[in-house]
Amino acid sequence: MIGRLNHVAIAVPDLAAAAAQYREMLGAEVGAPQDEPDHGVTVVFITLPNTKVELLYPLGEASPIRGFLDKNPAGGIHHICYEVEDILAARDRLVEKGARILGTGEPKTGAHGKPVLFLHPKDFNGTLIELEQV
Amino acid sequence: MIGRLNHVAIAVPDLAAAAAQYREMLGAEVGAPQDEPDHGVTVVFITLPNTKVELLYPLGEASPIRGFLDKNPAGGIHHICYEVEDILAARDRLVEKGARILGTGEPKTGAHGKPVLFLHPKDFNGTLIELEQV
Repeated sequence: MIGRLNHVAIAVPDLAAAAAQYREMLGAEVGAPQDEPDHGVTVVFITLPNTKVELLYPLGEASPIRGFLDKNPAGGIHHICYEVEDILAARDRLVEKGARILGTGEPKTGAHGKPVLFLHPKDFNGTLIELEQV
Repeated sequence: MIGRLNHVAIAVPDLAAAAAQYREMLGAEVGAPQDEPDHGVTVVFITLPNTKVELLYPLGEASPIRGFLDKNPAGGIHHICYEVEDILAARDRLVEKGARILGTGEPKTGAHGKPVLFLHPKDFNGTLIELEQV
Protein backbone atom coordinates (compact mmCIF):
# COMPACT_ATOMS: atom_id res chain seq x y z
CA MET A 1 0.00 0.00 0.00
CA ILE A 2 2.52 2.65 1.00
CA GLY A 3 4.79 3.77 -1.82
CA ARG A 4 7.66 6.24 -1.80
CA LEU A 5 8.84 8.15 1.23
CA ASN A 6 7.65 11.59 0.12
CA HIS A 7 9.50 13.55 2.79
CA VAL A 8 10.89 13.73 6.29
CA ALA A 9 9.72 16.85 8.16
CA ILE A 10 11.98 18.43 10.76
CA ALA A 11 10.68 21.17 13.08
CA VAL A 12 13.39 23.76 13.67
CA PRO A 13 13.68 26.67 16.13
CA ASP A 14 15.49 28.97 13.66
CA LEU A 15 14.53 28.48 10.03
CA ALA A 16 17.19 30.72 8.50
CA ALA A 17 19.93 29.07 10.54
CA ALA A 18 18.71 25.57 9.69
CA ALA A 19 18.45 26.40 5.98
CA ALA A 20 21.94 27.90 5.99
CA GLN A 21 23.26 24.85 7.78
CA TYR A 22 21.83 22.42 5.23
CA ARG A 23 23.13 24.59 2.40
CA GLU A 24 26.58 25.43 3.70
CA MET A 25 27.54 22.67 6.12
CA LEU A 26 25.75 19.74 4.50
CA GLY A 27 26.00 21.06 0.94
CA ALA A 28 22.39 20.30 0.04
CA GLU A 29 20.03 21.95 -2.47
CA VAL A 30 17.93 24.24 -0.27
CA GLY A 31 14.93 26.24 -1.49
CA ALA A 32 13.55 29.59 -0.37
CA PRO A 33 11.18 29.77 2.63
CA GLN A 34 7.51 29.40 1.68
CA ASP A 35 4.67 30.49 3.95
CA GLU A 36 1.84 27.99 4.11
CA PRO A 37 -0.76 29.94 6.13
CA ASP A 38 -3.41 27.23 5.74
CA HIS A 39 -1.07 24.81 7.52
CA GLY A 40 0.43 27.20 10.04
CA VAL A 41 3.98 26.66 8.87
CA THR A 42 6.77 28.25 6.93
CA VAL A 43 8.59 25.55 5.00
CA VAL A 44 12.02 25.22 3.45
CA PHE A 45 12.34 22.32 1.02
CA ILE A 46 15.62 20.45 0.80
CA THR A 47 15.84 18.43 -2.38
CA LEU A 48 17.80 15.19 -2.12
CA PRO A 49 18.28 12.90 -5.12
CA ASN A 50 15.61 10.46 -3.95
CA THR A 51 13.31 12.36 -1.59
CA LYS A 52 12.86 15.64 0.29
CA VAL A 53 13.50 17.00 3.73
CA GLU A 54 11.14 19.73 4.86
CA LEU A 55 12.23 22.19 7.52
CA LEU A 56 9.14 23.45 9.38
CA TYR A 57 8.80 26.63 11.39
CA PRO A 58 5.61 27.88 13.08
CA LEU A 59 3.51 30.46 11.22
CA GLY A 60 0.75 32.11 13.25
CA GLU A 61 -0.49 31.46 16.76
CA ALA A 62 -2.39 28.28 15.93
CA SER A 63 0.56 26.56 14.26
CA PRO A 64 0.61 22.78 14.82
CA ILE A 65 4.41 23.04 15.13
CA ARG A 66 4.43 25.40 18.10
CA GLY A 67 3.57 22.83 20.74
CA PHE A 68 6.16 20.43 19.34
CA LEU A 69 8.87 23.09 19.61
CA ASP A 70 7.74 23.97 23.13
CA LYS A 71 8.39 20.32 24.06
CA ASN A 72 11.51 20.05 21.89
CA PRO A 73 13.20 23.48 21.94
CA ALA A 74 16.17 22.29 19.89
CA GLY A 75 13.81 20.97 17.20
CA GLY A 76 13.35 17.40 16.06
CA ILE A 77 11.87 15.12 13.43
CA HIS A 78 8.17 15.97 13.37
CA HIS A 79 6.74 13.44 10.92
CA ILE A 80 7.42 11.25 7.91
CA CYS A 81 5.21 11.15 4.84
CA TYR A 82 4.48 8.04 2.80
CA GLU A 83 2.80 8.22 -0.58
CA VAL A 84 -0.35 6.24 -1.37
CA GLU A 85 -2.24 5.90 -4.62
CA ASP A 86 -5.74 6.07 -3.14
CA ILE A 87 -6.03 7.84 0.18
CA LEU A 88 -9.62 6.82 0.88
CA ALA A 89 -8.83 3.16 0.26
CA ALA A 90 -5.75 3.52 2.47
CA ARG A 91 -7.78 5.12 5.24
CA ASP A 92 -10.50 2.48 5.10
CA ARG A 93 -7.94 -0.32 5.24
CA LEU A 94 -6.18 1.27 8.21
CA VAL A 95 -9.38 1.96 10.14
CA GLU A 96 -10.60 -1.58 9.48
CA LYS A 97 -7.34 -2.87 10.97
CA GLY A 98 -7.71 -0.71 14.07
CA ALA A 99 -5.55 2.35 13.35
CA ARG A 100 -6.71 5.82 14.33
CA ILE A 101 -6.77 8.76 11.92
CA LEU A 102 -6.17 12.21 13.40
CA GLY A 103 -8.85 14.89 13.10
CA THR A 104 -12.13 14.17 11.36
CA GLY A 105 -10.81 11.19 9.43
CA GLU A 106 -11.46 13.00 6.15
CA PRO A 107 -8.48 13.92 3.96
CA LYS A 108 -7.41 17.56 3.87
CA THR A 109 -5.45 19.34 1.20
CA GLY A 110 -1.80 19.19 2.25
CA ALA A 111 1.08 21.55 1.74
CA HIS A 112 1.68 20.15 -1.77
CA GLY A 113 -1.96 20.66 -2.81
CA LYS A 114 -2.74 16.94 -2.56
CA PRO A 115 -5.05 15.02 -0.19
CA VAL A 116 -3.37 14.03 3.07
CA LEU A 117 -4.20 12.27 6.33
CA PHE A 118 -2.23 11.88 9.55
CA LEU A 119 -2.16 8.64 11.55
CA HIS A 120 -2.09 8.57 15.35
CA PRO A 121 1.53 8.31 16.52
CA LYS A 122 0.56 6.10 19.46
CA ASP A 123 -0.57 3.47 16.95
CA PHE A 124 2.71 3.66 14.98
CA ASN A 125 5.73 3.39 17.29
CA GLY A 126 5.59 7.00 18.44
CA THR A 127 5.94 8.17 14.84
CA LEU A 128 3.59 10.71 13.28
CA ILE A 129 2.87 9.39 9.79
CA GLU A 130 1.37 11.51 7.03
CA LEU A 131 -0.16 9.76 4.04
CA GLU A 132 -0.27 11.75 0.82
CA GLN A 133 -2.17 10.72 -2.28
CA VAL A 134 0.00 11.16 -5.38
CA MET B 1 27.76 17.09 -0.19
CA ILE B 2 24.92 14.96 1.15
CA GLY B 3 23.34 12.68 -1.40
CA ARG B 4 20.43 10.28 -1.07
CA LEU B 5 18.47 9.72 2.10
CA ASN B 6 19.70 6.20 2.80
CA HIS B 7 17.18 5.39 5.53
CA VAL B 8 14.99 6.58 8.36
CA ALA B 9 15.53 4.56 11.55
CA ILE B 10 12.64 4.07 13.96
CA ALA B 11 13.21 2.58 17.42
CA VAL B 12 10.31 0.31 18.35
CA PRO B 13 9.30 -1.34 21.62
CA ASP B 14 8.01 -4.53 19.96
CA LEU B 15 9.83 -5.51 16.79
CA ALA B 16 7.49 -8.31 15.73
CA ALA B 17 4.43 -6.11 16.21
CA ALA B 18 6.00 -3.21 14.33
CA ALA B 19 7.09 -5.47 11.45
CA ALA B 20 3.61 -7.01 11.25
CA GLN B 21 2.06 -3.56 11.27
CA TYR B 22 4.19 -2.33 8.37
CA ARG B 23 3.48 -5.53 6.46
CA GLU B 24 -0.22 -5.93 7.14
CA MET B 25 -1.57 -2.46 7.91
CA LEU B 26 0.70 -0.38 5.70
CA GLY B 27 1.23 -3.05 3.03
CA ALA B 28 5.00 -2.53 2.80
CA GLU B 29 7.78 -4.94 1.81
CA VAL B 30 9.18 -6.04 5.18
CA GLY B 31 12.28 -8.19 5.64
CA ALA B 32 13.18 -10.72 8.34
CA PRO B 33 14.76 -9.54 11.61
CA GLN B 34 18.57 -9.39 11.48
CA ASP B 35 20.74 -9.33 14.58
CA GLU B 36 23.58 -6.83 14.40
CA PRO B 37 25.52 -7.66 17.58
CA ASP B 38 28.31 -5.20 16.75
CA HIS B 39 25.76 -2.39 16.80
CA GLY B 40 23.57 -3.61 19.64
CA VAL B 41 20.43 -3.78 17.54
CA THR B 42 18.10 -6.17 15.82
CA VAL B 43 16.94 -4.59 12.57
CA VAL B 44 13.99 -5.11 10.26
CA PHE B 45 14.41 -3.46 6.87
CA ILE B 46 11.37 -2.02 5.12
CA THR B 47 12.01 -1.48 1.44
CA LEU B 48 10.22 1.47 -0.11
CA PRO B 49 10.58 2.33 -3.82
CA ASN B 50 13.01 5.18 -3.13
CA THR B 51 14.59 4.51 0.28
CA LYS B 52 14.41 2.30 3.37
CA VAL B 53 12.90 2.43 6.81
CA GLU B 54 14.80 0.52 9.49
CA LEU B 55 12.98 -0.69 12.57
CA LEU B 56 15.47 -0.92 15.45
CA TYR B 57 15.16 -2.99 18.60
CA PRO B 58 17.79 -3.26 21.37
CA LEU B 59 20.12 -6.26 21.29
CA GLY B 60 22.22 -6.78 24.40
CA GLU B 61 22.60 -4.69 27.53
CA ALA B 62 24.83 -2.03 25.95
CA SER B 63 22.47 -1.31 23.08
CA PRO B 64 22.47 2.36 22.03
CA ILE B 65 18.71 2.05 21.50
CA ARG B 66 17.84 1.10 25.06
CA GLY B 67 18.18 4.59 26.56
CA PHE B 68 16.13 6.03 23.72
CA LEU B 69 13.31 3.59 24.39
CA ASP B 70 13.52 4.28 28.13
CA LYS B 71 12.84 7.93 27.32
CA ASN B 72 10.37 7.15 24.54
CA PRO B 73 8.56 3.97 25.58
CA ALA B 74 6.21 4.05 22.59
CA GLY B 75 9.20 4.29 20.24
CA GLY B 76 10.09 7.10 17.86
CA ILE B 77 12.28 8.18 14.99
CA HIS B 78 15.84 7.58 16.16
CA HIS B 79 17.94 8.95 13.30
CA ILE B 80 18.10 9.70 9.60
CA CYS B 81 20.97 8.66 7.37
CA TYR B 82 22.33 10.68 4.47
CA GLU B 83 24.75 9.23 1.95
CA VAL B 84 28.09 10.88 1.21
CA GLU B 85 30.72 9.97 -1.35
CA ASP B 86 33.74 10.58 0.85
CA ILE B 87 33.16 10.35 4.57
CA LEU B 88 36.54 11.76 5.62
CA ALA B 89 36.11 14.79 3.39
CA ALA B 90 32.58 15.21 4.76
CA ARG B 91 33.81 14.97 8.34
CA ASP B 92 36.60 17.47 7.78
CA ARG B 93 34.23 19.95 6.16
CA LEU B 94 31.74 19.62 9.02
CA VAL B 95 34.35 19.94 11.75
CA GLU B 96 35.85 22.97 10.03
CA LYS B 97 32.41 24.59 10.05
CA GLY B 98 31.92 23.87 13.74
CA ALA B 99 29.83 20.67 13.84
CA ARG B 100 30.56 17.98 16.40
CA ILE B 101 31.04 14.33 15.47
CA LEU B 102 29.92 11.75 18.05
CA GLY B 103 32.45 9.31 19.49
CA THR B 104 36.09 9.44 18.46
CA GLY B 105 35.43 11.31 15.24
CA GLU B 106 36.73 8.35 13.24
CA PRO B 107 34.32 6.46 10.96
CA LYS B 108 33.10 3.06 12.12
CA THR B 109 31.76 0.25 10.01
CA GLY B 110 27.98 0.63 10.04
CA ALA B 111 25.17 -1.89 9.86
CA HIS B 112 25.51 -2.06 6.06
CA GLY B 113 29.25 -2.76 6.20
CA LYS B 114 30.16 0.77 5.09
CA PRO B 115 31.92 3.61 6.94
CA VAL B 116 29.58 5.75 9.02
CA LEU B 117 29.69 8.72 11.38
CA PHE B 118 27.03 10.27 13.59
CA LEU B 119 26.66 14.04 14.02
CA HIS B 120 25.71 15.66 17.32
CA PRO B 121 21.91 16.18 17.40
CA LYS B 122 22.27 19.44 19.32
CA ASP B 123 24.10 20.88 16.31
CA PHE B 124 21.40 19.74 13.86
CA ASN B 125 17.94 20.77 15.06
CA GLY B 126 17.59 17.96 17.57
CA THR B 127 18.05 15.41 14.80
CA LEU B 128 20.56 12.57 15.03
CA ILE B 129 22.16 12.39 11.57
CA GLU B 130 24.16 9.41 10.35
CA LEU B 131 26.45 9.87 7.37
CA GLU B 132 27.21 6.74 5.37
CA GLN B 133 29.85 6.52 2.66
CA VAL B 134 28.42 4.74 -0.38
